[in-house]
Amino acid sequence: MNLVDKRCTSCESGTMPLSKSAAEEFLKQTLDWQLSEDSTRISKKFKFKNFKDALAFVNEVGHIAEAEVHHPDIILKWGKVEVELSTHAIKGLSENDFILAAKIDTLN
Amino acid sequence: MNLVDKRCTSCESGTMPLSKSAAEEFLKQTLDWQLSEDSTRISKKFKFKNFKDALAFVNEVGHIAEAEVHHPDIILKWGKVEVELSTHAIKGLSENDFILAAKIDTLN
Repeated sequence: MNLVDKRCTSCESGTMPLSKSAAEEFLKQTLDWQLSEDSTRISKKFKFKNFKDALAFVNEVGHIAEAEVHHPDIILKWGKVEVELSTHAIKGLSENDFILAAKIDTLN
Repeated sequence: MNLVDKRCTSCESGTMPLSKSAAEEFLKQTLDWQLSEDSTRISKKFKFKNFKDALAFVNEVGHIAEAEVHHPDIILKWGKVEVELSTHAIKGLSENDFILAAKIDTLN
C-alpha cells in the first residue's frame, strides 16, 4: 500500500524510532523531504507567491494533521512554509511521519 | 494615540531601525513581548489547549498581518504559537512591529 493511502496509527512510547536506513527507505516514497543529521525528523520547505497563499497551505497541512491526529511543527514566513515532522512520543521518526509527508506532498 | 489604534505605514529601506532604548519604550505599550539581544526583533509565545486552537490563532494573526500589510514569522506547534516581528526592509524594528504586537495582544 502506498504511504498516501495509509492512516497514521497510535504510537506507543515504547516503540523504537526508525533507524537511519529504514528512514531513508521511507524517504524514497516522499518528494524532497530532508532527513535530519540525527535521523530524528524530516523537514521540507515550500515557496508561495505571498503570505496569504502560504497561510492557506498551513491550513491545508493542519487539516491533514487533524485528520491523522499527527501534528507537524510549521514555520510560516512571507511566501515560505517549512514543515517539520517527528514522532515526539518516541523521540524520533515513525512511519506516521512519512504517511503525513506523503499526504502533504499531494497538496503542492 | 495608542499603538492599537494606529495603522502600519510603508517603511522605506533608508529608514533607520529603532534604537534599543526606543524599542524598550514601545515595548512598555505591549504585553509580554521579548526584545532580542541585538534589538532587531520582538517575539512572544502563546499557549493553547490543542493544535486546532493554535492554528485558529495563527489565522487571526494572519488576518491582522494582511490588513496591516506587515507580516510576522510564525512558528506553530501542537498547542503553541511563537510570533516574531521585525521590519526586514530596515533589518531591525520599526513602530510597525509594535503596532502589530499591540493588535495581536488584543486577540489573546
